[in-house]
Amino acid sequence: MSNPDQADNLDLLIAAVESQNSERIRVLLSDLHSADVAKLLESLTPEQRPAVWSEVSPTAKGEVLVEVPDGVREDLLADMDKETLVTAVRYLDIDEIADLIPDLPDDVLADVLFNVDKDARASLGEVLSYPEDTAGGLMNVDAIMIRENISLRVVIRYLRLRGQLPEFTDKLFVVDRANHLKGVLSVSTLITAPASDRVGIHCDRKPITLNAMDPQEDVAQAFEKYNLISAPVVDEQEQLIGRITVDDVVDVIRDDADHSIMARAGLSQEEDIFAPVARSTKNRAVWLGVNLITAIIASWVIGQFEETIEKLVALAVLMPIVASMGGNAGTQTLTVVIRGLSVGTITHANAWQVIKKEFLVGGLNGVIWALAVAMVATLWYHDYALGLIIALAMIINIVISALAGVILPFILQRLGVDPALAGGVALTTITDVVGFFSLLGLAALFLI
Amino acid sequence: MSNPDQADNLDLLIAAVESQNSERIRVLLSDLHSADVAKLLESLTPEQRPAVWSEVSPTAKGEVLVEVPDGVREDLLADMDKETLVTAVRYLDIDEIADLIPDLPDDVLADVLFNVDKDARASLGEVLSYPEDTAGGLMNVDAIMIRENISLRVVIRYLRLRGQLPEFTDKLFVVDRANHLKGVLSVSTLITAPASDRVGIHCDRKPITLNAMDPQEDVAQAFEKYNLISAPVVDEQEQLIGRITVDDVVDVIRDDADHSIMARAGLSQEEDIFAPVARSTKNRAVWLGVNLITAIIASWVIGQFEETIEKLVALAVLMPIVASMGGNAGTQTLTVVIRGLSVGTITHANAWQVIKKEFLVGGLNGVIWALAVAMVATLWYHDYALGLIIALAMIINIVISALAGVILPFILQRLGVDPALAGGVALTTITDVVGFFSLLGLAALFLI
Repeated sequence: MSNPDQADNLDLLIAAVESQNSERIRVLLSDLHSADVAKLLESLTPEQRPAVWSEVSPTAKGEVLVEVPDGVREDLLADMDKETLVTAVRYLDIDEIADLIPDLPDDVLADVLFNVDKDARASLGEVLSYPEDTAGGLMNVDAIMIRENISLRVVIRYLRLRGQLPEFTDKLFVVDRANHLKGVLSVSTLITAPASDRVGIHCDRKPITLNAMDPQEDVAQAFEKYNLISAPVVDEQEQLIGRITVDDVVDVIRDDADHSIMARAGLSQEEDIFAPVARSTKNRAVWLGVNLITAIIASWVIGQFEETIEKLVALAVLMPIVASMGGNAGTQTLTVVIRGLSVGTITHANAWQVIKKEFLVGGLNGVIWALAVAMVATLWYHDYALGLIIALAMIINIVISALAGVILPFILQRLGVDPALAGGVALTTITDVVGFFSLLGLAALFLI
Repeated sequence: MSNPDQADNLDLLIAAVESQNSERIRVLLSDLHSADVAKLLESLTPEQRPAVWSEVSPTAKGEVLVEVPDGVREDLLADMDKETLVTAVRYLDIDEIADLIPDLPDDVLADVLFNVDKDARASLGEVLSYPEDTAGGLMNVDAIMIRENISLRVVIRYLRLRGQLPEFTDKLFVVDRANHLKGVLSVSTLITAPASDRVGIHCDRKPITLNAMDPQEDVAQAFEKYNLISAPVVDEQEQLIGRITVDDVVDVIRDDADHSIMARAGLSQEEDIFAPVARSTKNRAVWLGVNLITAIIASWVIGQFEETIEKLVALAVLMPIVASMGGNAGTQTLTVVIRGLSVGTITHANAWQVIKKEFLVGGLNGVIWALAVAMVATLWYHDYALGLIIALAMIINIVISALAGVILPFILQRLGVDPALAGGVALTTITDVVGFFSLLGLAALFLI
């Protein structure tokens, strides 16, 4: 989990910032990859960042801006004049410029567009015409295109003239005059097959192909499943418009995983750890507000049984146990089902089987922990009837919570709500309400 | 999130299994990639699996076994005779066989080893000598090695003789007679540079190199940071022993993300959704047991204030609000810090800055929600003093919870405990205890 080099570098960098030694800062940064510089800037407070940012070389600034999360990027952009910004952006790939554009001021954008060549401007227009989280938004426009009636020797000669291949070029794209994708030729074949053979003989005519509007999750699944390094992207007319490379897909996978983890606490994966206190407070307050409503609903349920509690205070002492055990059992089921839905192993086709299984597991665990809690309660209060009631309440709550854990993600998905974001709150509301109501209700009926 | 093709395939497959139509099952499976077959098998119940598994072609079975999670693999292996198993395993890569070996019966293992050639057996020994979660355990042994004093033309001629390159070959490895890694030659350079040049001129002498004992998290970070397709693995003597390819790294990243999500609910990422009920119950019961201890501690705190509650039942009604708001505020901080530690943006060097910031955010949110809850309580019970007490308790609990969210991951990490696994339980214990104690304690002091 730890990253000793990063910690050492950060220590040294903070020391250099505090002693205002800009020469030292430059030396510390000089050997680092832009991804490392981005991480260091993210690890600094907004007060420390300008001293470091000004020492990053003008041509490297663009790469760093691409790497940092949104919050940090805003912070860094605020400190840059137009000229530096245009220089920084000019050295980026088209797909990277496209990612930055939403954060760029209009006049900088105009200058950047003015400074790229006509072809690049057209390509940028193409990339920007698709939403950021689709294949079209992810693609780059550096695909090498060849015709199928030429020989491999000619292809190799063409590549020699062209010079170093773009990164992640494991295949060339075979197109006709109208740019329709006819197939792909792997670089491995290009090297190993007889040089006099024509491209057409060796071209794979059914390559895995992405459509510009495919969501990025599908792109990631295709890369994972078919072990791709690059894949062609076509528009609605089956014309090749770009290619996606595995490095961008790795970022999608990491972002997607971060989203699942952060969303559960109502956070964004783009959150800057040193965002201004006011902004962080506001971002988090919304989530706390939603949870407060949940908590008030649970309290209201308890409020309906004030008289019962007054007569038997032990209920107030024991009720959090029932609610919390239900919450934990439900969270386990919820986690399994949300993951199953997202990787595709749980679908409507086997939902009923999953419900049956989780009902049985919940039931068994309900009985086991009902017995344990009943024993604790009976020993604590020397009251068998109370032990019996809490055991019953536990079984009811664990079983209902387990079922809610299965069913909620399906309902939320159908409503178009992200289960990772809303599943936990919805589940807590149910487990608290059912937990308190079953214990206090049973007690009111049978004990008082 | 959804995966319509998978759902359709699963529907059709379940129908075929239920009508015992093995011909239809074979047709449904015939066009699918082994990763898709693996996912379908995972989506079936253990009762449905044998009918499908027997229709998977003998040579494809190996790939499927590699793809399924541990629980499902055990289930499938139990159904296979030795001969089928030997056939299935024989077609796999060395690194894949190495991954399966812990699950293979001894006699099958002996047969597999007997059936691979001597070189492969030696390689397998090499891969197996490193832990599964290190670079050595992840590597494959299909690196193409060349000498630096030959010309690119000779390299191309050698590759032509050799035939199709191994998957993910973006570079060749330049070694001396003793197999010491001297550098790498990119395939792109091989194609584009003059054929008469020697390898030595174009070889990158400082490639990103992994050591066999590097943990897999570091491997994943290196691939993400330096956008690699493949990287050489060397042993302690700097001898090239294999290479790691990006497809295996993508699996590491996905597994790592799954682990973070599942561990929070005390689950394993290898859990089979249709594992036998008894086994699932047992796996989950441990976690529920740990959480029960937490809940009992919280109850014990409430138990100390029975008299206070008896005199003012409103406290029993309101106390879950204080505990739950603290829990949510703490979880947000905990999530931010665990992620920061794992990606390396939070280290000891800036821990104090993070604590300061989270203290301020917690304080502000504490005040905001204290006011809101105080209003609710005052309106509900028409009791200003009660409103004041609950407001104070809220501020105390939200601030302490936020601080606990920062500090706990550091403590757990130092103790060698995975914060993703234990952070939540530890935090809940603190937020419940502090929440109940502050509200009931303040009430006992000032209200009763």
